[in-house]
Amino acid sequence: MTVELRGVIPYLVTPVDQPSGRLRERELGRLVEHLLAGGVQGLSPLGSTGEFASLPAGLRLATVRAVVAAAAGAVPVVPGVAAAGTADAIAQATAYLEAGASAIVLILQPYLPLSEAEIVDYYRGVAEAVDCPIVLYENPLLGTQLSLAALEDLAALPSVRYLKDASPNTGRLLSVSNRLGDRLGLFAASAHVPLFVLELGGKGWMAGPACVAPLLSVELLRLWESGEREAAWSLQRRLWRLNELFQRYSLAPCVKAALEELGFRVGAPLHPQRALHGAALDEIRGALAQLELL
Amino acid sequence: MTVELRGVIPYLVTPVDQPSGRLRERELGRLVEHLLAGGVQGLSPLGSTGEFASLPAGLRLATVRAVVAAAAGAVPVVPGVAAAGTADAIAQATAYLEAGASAIVLILQPYLPLSEAEIVDYYRGVAEAVDCPIVLYENPLLGTQLSLAALEDLAALPSVRYLKDASPNTGRLLSVSNRLGDRLGLFAASAHVPLFVLELGGKGWMAGPACVAPLLSVELLRLWESGEREAAWSLQRRLWRLNELFQRYSLAPCVKAALEELGFRVGAPLHPQRALHGAALDEIRGALAQLELL
Amino acid sequence: MTVELRGVIPYLVTPVDQPSGRLRERELGRLVEHLLAGGVQGLSPLGSTGEFASLPAGLRLATVRAVVAAAAGAVPVVPGVAAAGTADAIAQATAYLEAGASAIVLILQPYLPLSEAEIVDYYRGVAEAVDCPIVLYENPLLGTQLSLAALEDLAALPSVRYLKDASPNTGRLLSVSNRLGDRLGLFAASAHVPLFVLELGGKGWMAGPACVAPLLSVELLRLWESGEREAAWSLQRRLWRLNELFQRYSLAPCVKAALEELGFRVGAPLHPQRALHGAALDEIRGALAQLELL
Amino acid sequence: MTVELRGVIPYLVTPVDQPSGRLRERELGRLVEHLLAGGVQGLSPLGSTGEFASLPAGLRLATVRAVVAAAAGAVPVVPGVAAAGTADAIAQATAYLEAGASAIVLILQPYLPLSEAEIVDYYRGVAEAVDCPIVLYENPLLGTQLSLAALEDLAALPSVRYLKDASPNTGRLLSVSNRLGDRLGLFAASAHVPLFVLELGGKGWMAGPACVAPLLSVELLRLWESGEREAAWSLQRRLWRLNELFQRYSLAPCVKAALEELGFRVGAPLHPQRALHGAALDEIRGALAQLELL
Repeated sequence: MTVELRGVIPYLVTPVDQPSGRLRERELGRLVEHLLAGGVQGLSPLGSTGEFASLPAGLRLATVRAVVAAAAGAVPVVPGVAAAGTADAIAQATAYLEAGASAIVLILQPYLPLSEAEIVDYYRGVAEAVDCPIVLYENPLLGTQLSLAALEDLAALPSVRYLKDASPNTGRLLSVSNRLGDRLGLFAASAHVPLFVLELGGKGWMAGPACVAPLLSVELLRLWESGEREAAWSLQRRLWRLNELFQRYSLAPCVKAALEELGFRVGAPLHPQRALHGAALDEIRGALAQLELL
Repeated sequence: MTVELRGVIPYLVTPVDQPSGRLRERELGRLVEHLLAGGVQGLSPLGSTGEFASLPAGLRLATVRAVVAAAAGAVPVVPGVAAAGTADAIAQATAYLEAGASAIVLILQPYLPLSEAEIVDYYRGVAEAVDCPIVLYENPLLGTQLSLAALEDLAALPSVRYLKDASPNTGRLLSVSNRLGDRLGLFAASAHVPLFVLELGGKGWMAGPACVAPLLSVELLRLWESGEREAAWSLQRRLWRLNELFQRYSLAPCVKAALEELGFRVGAPLHPQRALHGAALDEIRGALAQLELL
Repeated sequence: MTVELRGVIPYLVTPVDQPSGRLRERELGRLVEHLLAGGVQGLSPLGSTGEFASLPAGLRLATVRAVVAAAAGAVPVVPGVAAAGTADAIAQATAYLEAGASAIVLILQPYLPLSEAEIVDYYRGVAEAVDCPIVLYENPLLGTQLSLAALEDLAALPSVRYLKDASPNTGRLLSVSNRLGDRLGLFAASAHVPLFVLELGGKGWMAGPACVAPLLSVELLRLWESGEREAAWSLQRRLWRLNELFQRYSLAPCVKAALEELGFRVGAPLHPQRALHGAALDEIRGALAQLELL
Repeated sequence: MTVELRGVIPYLVTPVDQPSGRLRERELGRLVEHLLAGGVQGLSPLGSTGEFASLPAGLRLATVRAVVAAAAGAVPVVPGVAAAGTADAIAQATAYLEAGASAIVLILQPYLPLSEAEIVDYYRGVAEAVDCPIVLYENPLLGTQLSLAALEDLAALPSVRYLKDASPNTGRLLSVSNRLGDRLGLFAASAHVPLFVLELGGKGWMAGPACVAPLLSVELLRLWESGEREAAWSLQRRLWRLNELFQRYSLAPCVKAALEELGFRVGAPLHPQRALHGAALDEIRGALAQLELL
């Protein structure tokens, strides 16, 4: 349990043949190699961009295996574990770790609203059952954003080491940083401006857009870390266009469309979600062109 | 595909040993026999009361099998099929029908908001792939309540025969009844007052509270159908207390607590959801006593 | 304080010249006479249909005066009192009663969320300061739907005699009726099906659609009260179309458009809200034609 | 119309005797003098902190007059104009400008949801009718956050010069800055971290907390502008505590409680909102002590 997470950790799409439901392992491998060549510091399959909610258990595990194989130990693989029940989450986490994952992003996806005590029980139950670093995922849209006191309780567990907050609320991160900055490493989600999270002492970012622009994302981090603040901001302002599109169009349709444009045969989002077309696709192409990715 | 659904179709709880995750088949069988003895006209496992979202695929299928075995053909078994992706839903439905289910309640549980066209694609995709009557489930809290025009399109499919609307909006049902009353049979969910749904021409109700009070639920229907309106309303007013508790406390905790009081060892809700205790449990007991169930 | 409210009490529009902001008193008088000729049992200016939120205090008072003058004592005038602060509400209520109003609909329009204790304080503060029957208005969209316990506390005040619940949740009304049916008279709002509210023992309905179809609304009530249940339901099903349009298009635009079609020069909704046109207007016309109002 | 807004512009509370409703002009004057002595660059009465929604029109105008008198031309007075209708907003703005205001914060407080075209019509209608710089106020909780395209249209009007976005979404500000940074000056609201807004090129902040800590707020700005980034961040981290409390407890109760602790007799929030007490008040005192304000 000694891996340290930091830097650019792209959320991966899950390329699937439809309607057969077969994972396109080779294409996923190509994407992983491309990201590694771009210098990313980790890989996160089975996030929201990875359409975890639409994947049956077998396909989820196959995805982790394929990413671990393609990464070949070069960087940590940090899959999303998402469930409504604690037992299901533990089973997923256990399987992914056996398959070679180094850490997990722990997501709670309740069907009905839960009390904060129940939410904490979920996170704690998984954290005590698995032996790996955990990135806590909280999201106000899922009803899973915690009070600072609850977060502090969880941060006392040795495996709870990072936080990914999926809100666009940067002030929330300042509050967390003030109170728990020495115990919880912060990662920017796609709704946060990465440079602001870094300014607060954050560890990096985990998000779908990094899957489309790995080189630029890594360069952004390098500029920041080397103190080239002005150049970093100039790049951040340009890169933000990807985040805007990502938020405007749904996650997987946007990233899959962009990757298809870049030559990766990742296919369409999982039915019933529709592939982008027309004006939306033109907007994606325009953004890729502005970033000189096309 | 000739089964007709009507009457009282209780939503079943799923009794599970924890943390082992083993289904308590015998206790589930006892509950089914008790409900059949009470005269219910169908059985619906894997609804929200059945905690489907917290059950892995294997446990879901085992539950359907156990209910089918216990029902022994006496009444139709109508499990919930709930997924974010169409392929997953088709796989579930196929497995449940092979296991002996007669019909399904088709639930869409999106992770991110979908367009209405995508929602319709999901329902249509499943409806065209399976050969059984479908109860469409719509819920504004899940973002899956459809326009009347979309509902009309779906009602044109031969398998789409019933609608369960999980909102508390009775006027919505009048709108549906006015436009599609001859093509879609309406079922009351737990937020609707059953007698109002029957007054609109509805087929019956599918809900968790009927699991606690099958005899009274069946009696309510009988009173209504035999034109004893005043007696029906008197009983409905008393029975509504169960729905109030069901909405106030979360579904599975409430129904599991009540069934435990009635002597069924259905156990606690699935972790992290907590069992009711203290004042909440006293309220449940009080309601059962008022209905002379204790 | 002896007036009893019952029956059909239309929510009135507020016809205003724009941009001058002058009340069209004569046209408002014509509308009132038309409604009285239709047999309505009360008149409610300054409801949501009356665009109270867009009217400065002087115009609100002028509207009450004009309605009182036109009603000439034939039926009670029950204006809406809507404020964020208690003192403002008391000032409004006092002025309207001095102007001849018989009762008020008491609305709380908070700018920021209030606790239930604060909400109760508002209602209580006004109820204790004025000497007239009060129709409590609650609306979950405004955060002002109360617990049954809080409602019970308020119903103990002699002036709190009626409840208008602006949700579409009919089960809520059954809960209120079970607990407080002998102390709080229920009125259907436009989202409720009037016949269901009457079935629960309700007093009548207060809503914008009755402003468009007073004769049919009064007839609906008569059919119900004379026990002609089948004819009542047949009419209710037809009339519901007005409620559907009212909910689909915003309130004042819909009712003002319909009244213009019927020959009342009530003008456009208050800027920036836009008058209906095109397909929306055609739908309004179609509904009026189906009800043989055109 | 040549005034330029920048720097620290506190949102003022409105001290009112209750239940008489008389403005405490002298105390408001003392507060203004204290803020001016602290070096603030503007004053904003009638914001959310100023409880505008609970103040009748006469009291709103009296408040503007009192602030203008106390400011005596030292800094611009920028009152909030908040209405549901355009005509009401124009009347308010006209009165405030005649009373000596230099600019306005333009708030739309719709009662029912409006379309974006209607929202734009409101802002445009007021902007074209008044002759002063306008701070557009947008708030997703009120349904008034605009698309970038709509914002761009409005920014083309000469009087629309500033934007106050009341969400906590800092990425939104980056999007606005990228597209309209040269035409719309950004002000941080209380949910934003001021230093982040300054980093994006913002003009300053307009918020309630600055009313409690004017000296520190002005110092924060000075440190930033003089390039003392580390000291600025150290102060920002400490000051954020005030924003946290401001968000946790409702605005006026929090700021009025803090000002009472600091010796200003601003009284309680307007009924029915309750004054803070007990643990909440202790927390306020603790925060003031940590900032060495007590």
